[in-house]
Amino acid sequence: MFLTRSEYDRGVNTFSPEGRLFQVEYAIEAIKLGSTAIGIQTSEGVVLAVEKRITSPLMEPTTIEKIVEIDKHIGCAVSGLMADSRTMVDRARVEAQNHWFTYDEKMSVESVAQAVSNLAIQFGDSDDDGNAMSRPFGVAILFAGIDEKGPQLFHMDPSGTYVQYDAKAIGSGSEGAQQSLQEAYNKSMTLKSAMKAALTILKQVMEEKLSSTNVEVAAVTPDQPFHMYSKEQVEDVIKEIA
Amino acid sequence: MFLTRSEYDRGVNTFSPEGRLFQVEYAIEAIKLGSTAIGIQTSEGVVLAVEKRITSPLMEPTTIEKIVEIDKHIGCAVSGLMADSRTMVDRARVEAQNHWFTYDEKMSVESVAQAVSNLAIQFGDSDDDGNAMSRPFGVAILFAGIDEKGPQLFHMDPSGTYVQYDAKAIGSGSEGAQQSLQEAYNKSMTLKSAMKAALTILKQVMEEKLSSTNVEVAAVTPDQPFHMYSKEQVEDVIKEIA
Amino acid sequence: MFLTRSEYDRGVNTFSPEGRLFQVEYAIEAIKLGSTAIGIQTSEGVVLAVEKRITSPLMEPTTIEKIVEIDKHIGCAVSGLMADSRTMVDRARVEAQNHWFTYDEKMSVESVAQAVSNLAIQFGDSDDDGNAMSRPFGVAILFAGIDEKGPQLFHMDPSGTYVQYDAKAIGSGSEGAQQSLQEAYNKSMTLKSAMKAALTILKQVMEEKLSSTNVEVAAVTPDQPFHMYSKEQVEDVIKEIA
Amino acid sequence: MFLTRSEYDRGVNTFSPEGRLFQVEYAIEAIKLGSTAIGIQTSEGVVLAVEKRITSPLMEPTTIEKIVEIDKHIGCAVSGLMADSRTMVDRARVEAQNHWFTYDEKMSVESVAQAVSNLAIQFGDSDDDGNAMSRPFGVAILFAGIDEKGPQLFHMDPSGTYVQYDAKAIGSGSEGAQQSLQEAYNKSMTLKSAMKAALTILKQVMEEKLSSTNVEVAAVTPDQPFHMYSKEQVEDVIKEIA
Amino acid sequence: MFLTRSEYDRGVNTFSPEGRLFQVEYAIEAIKLGSTAIGIQTSEGVVLAVEKRITSPLMEPTTIEKIVEIDKHIGCAVSGLMADSRTMVDRARVEAQNHWFTYDEKMSVESVAQAVSNLAIQFGDSDDDGNAMSRPFGVAILFAGIDEKGPQLFHMDPSGTYVQYDAKAIGSGSEGAQQSLQEAYNKSMTLKSAMKAALTILKQVMEEKLSSTNVEVAAVTPDQPFHMYSKEQVEDVIKEIA
Amino acid sequence: MFLTRSEYDRGVNTFSPEGRLFQVEYAIEAIKLGSTAIGIQTSEGVVLAVEKRITSPLMEPTTIEKIVEIDKHIGCAVSGLMADSRTMVDRARVEAQNHWFTYDEKMSVESVAQAVSNLAIQFGDSDDDGNAMSRPFGVAILFAGIDEKGPQLFHMDPSGTYVQYDAKAIGSGSEGAQQSLQEAYNKSMTLKSAMKAALTILKQVMEEKLSSTNVEVAAVTPDQPFHMYSKEQVEDVIKEIA
Amino acid sequence: MFLTRSEYDRGVNTFSPEGRLFQVEYAIEAIKLGSTAIGIQTSEGVVLAVEKRITSPLMEPTTIEKIVEIDKHIGCAVSGLMADSRTMVDRARVEAQNHWFTYDEKMSVESVAQAVSNLAIQFGDSDDDGNAMSRPFGVAILFAGIDEKGPQLFHMDPSGTYVQYDAKAIGSGSEGAQQSLQEAYNKSMTLKSAMKAALTILKQVMEEKLSSTNVEVAAVTPDQPFHMYSKEQVEDVIKEIA
Repeated sequence: MFLTRSEYDRGVNTFSPEGRLFQVEYAIEAIKLGSTAIGIQTSEGVVLAVEKRITSPLMEPTTIEKIVEIDKHIGCAVSGLMADSRTMVDRARVEAQNHWFTYDEKMSVESVAQAVSNLAIQFGDSDDDGNAMSRPFGVAILFAGIDEKGPQLFHMDPSGTYVQYDAKAIGSGSEGAQQSLQEAYNKSMTLKSAMKAALTILKQVMEEKLSSTNVEVAAVTPDQPFHMYSKEQVEDVIKEIA
Repeated sequence: MFLTRSEYDRGVNTFSPEGRLFQVEYAIEAIKLGSTAIGIQTSEGVVLAVEKRITSPLMEPTTIEKIVEIDKHIGCAVSGLMADSRTMVDRARVEAQNHWFTYDEKMSVESVAQAVSNLAIQFGDSDDDGNAMSRPFGVAILFAGIDEKGPQLFHMDPSGTYVQYDAKAIGSGSEGAQQSLQEAYNKSMTLKSAMKAALTILKQVMEEKLSSTNVEVAAVTPDQPFHMYSKEQVEDVIKEIA
Repeated sequence: MFLTRSEYDRGVNTFSPEGRLFQVEYAIEAIKLGSTAIGIQTSEGVVLAVEKRITSPLMEPTTIEKIVEIDKHIGCAVSGLMADSRTMVDRARVEAQNHWFTYDEKMSVESVAQAVSNLAIQFGDSDDDGNAMSRPFGVAILFAGIDEKGPQLFHMDPSGTYVQYDAKAIGSGSEGAQQSLQEAYNKSMTLKSAMKAALTILKQVMEEKLSSTNVEVAAVTPDQPFHMYSKEQVEDVIKEIA
Repeated sequence: MFLTRSEYDRGVNTFSPEGRLFQVEYAIEAIKLGSTAIGIQTSEGVVLAVEKRITSPLMEPTTIEKIVEIDKHIGCAVSGLMADSRTMVDRARVEAQNHWFTYDEKMSVESVAQAVSNLAIQFGDSDDDGNAMSRPFGVAILFAGIDEKGPQLFHMDPSGTYVQYDAKAIGSGSEGAQQSLQEAYNKSMTLKSAMKAALTILKQVMEEKLSSTNVEVAAVTPDQPFHMYSKEQVEDVIKEIA
Repeated sequence: MFLTRSEYDRGVNTFSPEGRLFQVEYAIEAIKLGSTAIGIQTSEGVVLAVEKRITSPLMEPTTIEKIVEIDKHIGCAVSGLMADSRTMVDRARVEAQNHWFTYDEKMSVESVAQAVSNLAIQFGDSDDDGNAMSRPFGVAILFAGIDEKGPQLFHMDPSGTYVQYDAKAIGSGSEGAQQSLQEAYNKSMTLKSAMKAALTILKQVMEEKLSSTNVEVAAVTPDQPFHMYSKEQVEDVIKEIA
Repeated sequence: MFLTRSEYDRGVNTFSPEGRLFQVEYAIEAIKLGSTAIGIQTSEGVVLAVEKRITSPLMEPTTIEKIVEIDKHIGCAVSGLMADSRTMVDRARVEAQNHWFTYDEKMSVESVAQAVSNLAIQFGDSDDDGNAMSRPFGVAILFAGIDEKGPQLFHMDPSGTYVQYDAKAIGSGSEGAQQSLQEAYNKSMTLKSAMKAALTILKQVMEEKLSSTNVEVAAVTPDQPFHMYSKEQVEDVIKEIA
Repeated sequence: MFLTRSEYDRGVNTFSPEGRLFQVEYAIEAIKLGSTAIGIQTSEGVVLAVEKRITSPLMEPTTIEKIVEIDKHIGCAVSGLMADSRTMVDRARVEAQNHWFTYDEKMSVESVAQAVSNLAIQFGDSDDDGNAMSRPFGVAILFAGIDEKGPQLFHMDPSGTYVQYDAKAIGSGSEGAQQSLQEAYNKSMTLKSAMKAALTILKQVMEEKLSSTNVEVAAVTPDQPFHMYSKEQVEDVIKEIA
């Protein structure tokens, strides 16, 4: 009577009889193939830590950017299709700049997530503006920033849905990592202990041995704008959690 | 002789031999996967109560907005695809603002529903303006507001059809909830008793245990514009109905 | 040798080997799922009566508008997809207003039907103006009005074809109702007896028990512009025909 | 080796291996479902006679227009899809008016046919101007008029091909009617005898009993512009041929 | 391993694995259903002769134009879909007029063929200018004219390929007719003998008996611009070849 | 697991699982149905020789242009679909003219090839400028010219790839002809011996007997711009190689 | 339950249930059919070496450009579809020129890669600007350059993803070549030894015997802008590694 599930999933933006959008669900699968990323929000600031997949010893790890700055007060970690993520990061940066220009104030973390969400849902056959995609974006994003409400961590998936989290993991190891985050997280943890927790969990879920080469760590705090941790700083923490 | 039912449902906006539009029907199914929301209209005002699904203890419940303000005198509760609902709420807000600006008076609740309905039916392959979707919106909305006709509750489904109700439930628990609403509702009930009834019914249909964290309650009254109830106010009612 | 009938019906606007347009025929099927509406033209004026489907006791019957005013001298009753009918009614109203503005005279009932017909046939893949639909409208309309030719009743189906009738029924009960109309109608009947006949026939074909809540009645006469009958007026007639 | 015939006919405007355009052929089939119309050209003028299908006794026969004026010196009879025919008649009228305006002379009957033919062949997926159809028009037309070459009768089918005829029948009864026309026609017949012949033949091919209600008759003569015959005039002829 | 031949032929403008364009080949088939036309180029001028298919004795033969003037010095004979041929003839006329206007000299016969060829190859899904067709034109054309190079006869098929010929036959009888032309043709033949040869060959391949009613003959000579032969002139030749 | 090869080849511009573009490969097949053409580059200039297919003795061979001038210093020989080749030759001519106009110098042979290549790869569904094709061009081209680098011969296939050759054959006889060219070619050969070699090889691969009627020969030398050889010159060479 | 893998791969830009984009993966396969290219970054500069496939002894090797200059300080080696690569190289050149013009400074190697990546991901049905492709580009690129960060080597694949490498091989022999590069590479190697290593590895993976005719070598150093090595220079190195 019904078509099998699979026959609905090629209409890019069409409901199945159960009311599901398979292309969006498949894009979410694309994230599960991506590298793991973790974000933790503390009262002292927000920390982001991501796995970098070094598929060849001749690859230059510093150019595989999985954590990028959006504005001085906001950074983000991405997982999934790298080329897609650049489009979304560009949108976020442009919106943040426009906000500065128009309102002379920092754009809130939630507003940045909203702006990227608007881009994310603009896919499908009938779109005809230059930026539109014919499929959902294959990217999950963790937005980490500080605004008038204090430190903020938002997660957005390919459907464009975004939700604030205390701590969130995305990518191939996200299932185990999220479980570990629930155990490790408490509201009063310091930024330092959050960073340790993030790296400890990455260490558990990564196939490669954790090193200062195959992870990136960044933070935003009230006193310090978005900044990447140096190789040395990361190595120190790795030693501590060994 | 005829194709089976399922073979008609992928033409986004095409009639089946029985005169049905399957994509719209499937979008209605998408609502049945959504969280439950309840609206009750009384002579003292209109109350909205929604379930919030907390899938992780690290999720920040306040950012899962299922009830939002459209204008000072109108709010709405949504169920279904969150990213879709934002587009519809944005349209509603813009229309309400334009009405103020153009006519210097509050837009009626029915006119707001009409404006969102216009957006809802603009889907399909031949649409080519930027806002159009290639599928129906996967959202049901309860509009609650006060205008010259007094307190008003309207329900709109993905087909764009909207109807005024005394009390209406949408989302995954709507079937049972609507039945309970018919038993509980009477024209002379107070806003307070309506709020109690809404929470009592949500408690019955929600899988999670009802708490001030996983529900949102809001109201519009002649004396008070649209306002969310505080965590404490919700907790008090939950205690009363325990 | 030939494809089966059903394989032609998804090309939205394509002839079958027998010269038929199946999507238009299926749209006509959509009307057969709609509520019943009756129009009767007498020398004293035209009367419209429609069934309102109350699917829940908490639904507000007055907001299910099946009879609406187009201009002071013309009203219409619709059956089928409610969201579609609004688009057609809007077109009719705009055209009637433009006619006033441009020619300083009332638009004739037939011209209004012509204007809506133009909209009805503009569907299909190659249309690219904003109002166009990718499918036929799923609505049948009875136009009732008074112009220089006197009282007029026009029927239009989803193909855009419109024809003047003395009396016409549309919707799910239309087959039986039209039969009854032929027996009941005579050229010299009064508006009052026409109204009685309409309600008597609705009573026969409706599944629900006829009441002043689940029917709407309206009329246009030379002395009185388009007007809805009050709940009391309807109740009086229901009593008379009991 | 080849697909069966039917598999070619859904590409709206695509040749089959034998070099045929099936959608145009199917549109021609649509005419065979239409009411019968007859045109006869005499040296005294041209006469048109059409069957009107009264599917309900409550239908107002005068509003089923199968014969319409295009300009003072040209009328036409149509058979097939009524909504389509209006578009073609509108084009013909606009072109005739423009001709008056631009050249200050009457448009020839052949030029009117050419203008409508241009519209008829503009169908298919790649057309993108507002008037274009995604399928051929399902209408056959008999153009009857008087110009510098004297009385003229042209026939146009859905392919846009038009040819001048002495006498021509279209619609469901056209096969038998054309045979009868060949027997009845002679170059020197009067307009009156042509009218009688047309009605006699309609009487033979119509399923309903011929009456002044279910036929329309019109003529154009050098002395009299396009005019419909009155009910009485038609009745007189019907009596004569009884 | 490969799809069968037929499965390639519906992509309007797509190569088959053997490098063929089936829609163009099928359009060429459409010509084989058309009436036969013959052109012969002599040193005294070029003659065109075509069969006219009289499907009804009531048809007016003079309006079935198979030979038309393009400019004073060029005429053409067509075979295939009549409505298509008008579009191509219109293009040819406009181009010839523009040439006069721009260069103040007669357009050469080859340049006219080139202009029509440009139109012929502009078909397919991706074309979006108003004149484009979604399929190849179903018309073959014989261009006959006189320019600086003397008398010229060009043949163009639906692929837009055009080649100069001494004598060429197109349409349903073209195979036999071309064979006969090769036997009959010699470089030194007079225009008169060419005309006789053309009619003699038409007589052989036509199903109907050759008469001055069902053929058209035209010529272009250095002394006389494009002109149709009168009924009497044609009858005289028919008598001569009897 | 995979679709068979053939099922990928109808998406006009889509990769197969092996990374192949079948429509381009099929277009290359179209060339193999074309007439043979040969180009040879010597230090004295470049020579082009092509087969002309005379399918009827009444065909005028001079109008089947397989070798054409692009600019005074560049000519080209084509094989494949004639109507396609005109579009490419037109582009080449326009680009060469624009180059003269803009830079006041001759366009290099390679730049001309590059310009035509840009046109060749612009096919597929998403192109929407007027010149674009919905399929690859079915034409191979040999560009022969003289520029600052001396005599140059370039070959371009339907994929738009162009490569410089000392000697190259295209069309139905190209496989055997290229083999013969490798044997016959040496860097120090004269233009005369190149012309003889080209005709000798054409003679071998052509089905028809080689004559001055069914071949075309042209050359570009430092002293003489692009020029066609006369019938007599060609006959002389044919005699020499007999 | 699921479609087989192959049934997803024709929607040009659609996710499979596992979250994969098959057309991009197939485009990557296209590279595996291409010629091998190698890039090595040393502290003294970056060297590029590519195989040139000479399919005919009459082919002019110098015109098969697999290594091209983008700006004075950046060159690139390509493998895959040659016609596609030109489009990407053109974009790179234009962007580099615009950067000079706008900022009066050299564009960084990474920024050039980013600019080409933006072009690479703009494919699919919904793109409508002139440069867009309906499929991914079938090209891999090695960007070699010197900017403020010193010598840089970037690799980009058809997905638009680019990563910095110390040494990288692309094309049909890339698997074996990359393995050899890992063994041969060390951070302190000289440009000369890098060039030797590149040619040694090409020699291993090429089917043809390595010669100065079928390879191209180029380099960028701080002292010398992008330059191709001469035939003699290449021959010297080939002798050394023999």
